[in-house]
Amino acid sequence: MDSPVVLGIDIGGTNTVYGFIGEDGHIYEHEEIPTKGADLVTDLVGRIESRTNQFLNDNPQLVLCGIGVGAPNGNHFTGMIQDPPNLSWGNVNIVELFKERFNCNTSLTNDANAAALGEKHYGVAKDMNDFIVITLGTGLGSGIFSGGKLLYGHDGFAGEMGHMPVEYDGRNCNCGNRGCLESYASASGIKKTIEDLQKELPNDEFLNSIHTDKIDGLLIDSAFDNGNELAKRIYEFTGNKLGQGLAQAATLLSPEAFIFYGGFSNAGDRILKPAKESMDRHLINGHAGTIELIRSGLPQGQAGILGAASLIWAP
Amino acid sequence: MDSPVVLGIDIGGTNTVYGFIGEDGHIYEHEEIPTKGADLVTDLVGRIESRTNQFLNDNPQLVLCGIGVGAPNGNHFTGMIQDPPNLSWGNVNIVELFKERFNCNTSLTNDANAAALGEKHYGVAKDMNDFIVITLGTGLGSGIFSGGKLLYGHDGFAGEMGHMPVEYDGRNCNCGNRGCLESYASASGIKKTIEDLQKELPNDEFLNSIHTDKIDGLLIDSAFDNGNELAKRIYEFTGNKLGQGLAQAATLLSPEAFIFYGGFSNAGDRILKPAKESMDRHLINGHAGTIELIRSGLPQGQAGILGAASLIWAP
Repeated sequence: MDSPVVLGIDIGGTNTVYGFIGEDGHIYEHEEIPTKGADLVTDLVGRIESRTNQFLNDNPQLVLCGIGVGAPNGNHFTGMIQDPPNLSWGNVNIVELFKERFNCNTSLTNDANAAALGEKHYGVAKDMNDFIVITLGTGLGSGIFSGGKLLYGHDGFAGEMGHMPVEYDGRNCNCGNRGCLESYASASGIKKTIEDLQKELPNDEFLNSIHTDKIDGLLIDSAFDNGNELAKRIYEFTGNKLGQGLAQAATLLSPEAFIFYGGFSNAGDRILKPAKESMDRHLINGHAGTIELIRSGLPQGQAGILGAASLIWAP
Repeated sequence: MDSPVVLGIDIGGTNTVYGFIGEDGHIYEHEEIPTKGADLVTDLVGRIESRTNQFLNDNPQLVLCGIGVGAPNGNHFTGMIQDPPNLSWGNVNIVELFKERFNCNTSLTNDANAAALGEKHYGVAKDMNDFIVITLGTGLGSGIFSGGKLLYGHDGFAGEMGHMPVEYDGRNCNCGNRGCLESYASASGIKKTIEDLQKELPNDEFLNSIHTDKIDGLLIDSAFDNGNELAKRIYEFTGNKLGQGLAQAATLLSPEAFIFYGGFSNAGDRILKPAKESMDRHLINGHAGTIELIRSGLPQGQAGILGAASLIWAP
């Protein structure tokens, strides 16, 4: 008997993950490929197309019944990826591009929303109606569930928690504003924190060793675990700012939990413990102590494609 | 023919408004009475009960089909008013108290949510799905619509925007925390601003004249209109902080508009113009300039009872 399958795609600034997913969340196959954001978007679409055709050929019992896409600046309402950071595509109607090729139901959301959908349908948020997923990577993204529904806002751009101000006249953010949460609590924010510490301690060996183009969280984690005071200061400071942002969001939305996903969430309690303390300190009475900070249980890369697929499976 | 009518009640710290409302929003009669928060809650309920019985006697063609209540710290999920500020009632199950007396469908929400429901069903937000109502009075309350639904959060306490931090280690707020939006942008916040200015200018006649137990917004408005520099500074500062809070909320929720209701919203553009400038300055590119700040068109006191009634009319 034919089984329906959805192509779930999670487009990232560096790599793209795609996979073939059944309604129960079973991933038949998935692969990570370079996005090649400097090339045309049709290059990425073409590579996914040919691999998909091959997969469907090899698995004649599977029928493609839809395509779900998560992408930075992906707009659920318009099907457009709008001027995505780190990708040279400008504005591109990714939904149309896939529909042209496969002639099936195609839906788009942004990458953090896709992670939130993945947690809701297949992850730790299965039994939650009110939660916020935070993706900690190069930047900070968020997807918000409230009352059992993903929030889009009037233009599809709700959940830009990374650009919520936490310190007025604070650090310059890549978005052009100042003091955004992302400029503190993300890989790029931690890089700025390291640079600030280097001004104080220009010859510190540890700081100089971790100050590279792409910050390696594992290096800071292991220094932290070995009692390095500067590693502690970095995560304490980062967690403190993150907690301020969590308090702001929680005061508005009263979620049951924040769920952390993405590379930097692997620091776990090293960041989340000071973040929770800071959040609780800034919450009004009654809320402090009631909101959990949880790490995603889904393997890195899977929340995105599962969530993208659930745009079709649970529209 | 009998016509159904809903008793809508808006309980405030000082006064309570109640009225009898048809499905089309027609208010047959409404009255404002002192809440008398130092007395037992059953005193207030008893006064509303006897007036309601008299009204129904006088209007035999009307049939009471439900009761909607808006109240500070009113919890939609539990029917409890939980330790309301300025009222000595502790925790009280107001839904049960009314059900006992009238044996009809009774529903509760908090006062700011009731105002938001009033705007959605009978006010300027009729055609909006994503908006935030802000009540500017002694404190600052908010009710959030997203995707056409009022947000409650997991425990009924979403929308506590007045206690969202906008300045870390800022002013002491009545809630016990520091730097909450309400401690800047509300009557009690403006009182603190006046006190700060008095430290700088202890003998200023204008400041001393407006520094009273209950700040009179009209006095500041007329001084502002006459070019008083301190009145301008007060509203500029207040609007600036308010705009910070709006930017924080808008970054998360991407609403179409903020709608202002309550005594201090009568200051209108004197506060809302600097608030909009501040909000736009702190929003990410693309959002600046897209979100309207609007004043409620409903008469003072009516959004609350209309919204409370819509808990029954449009559950």
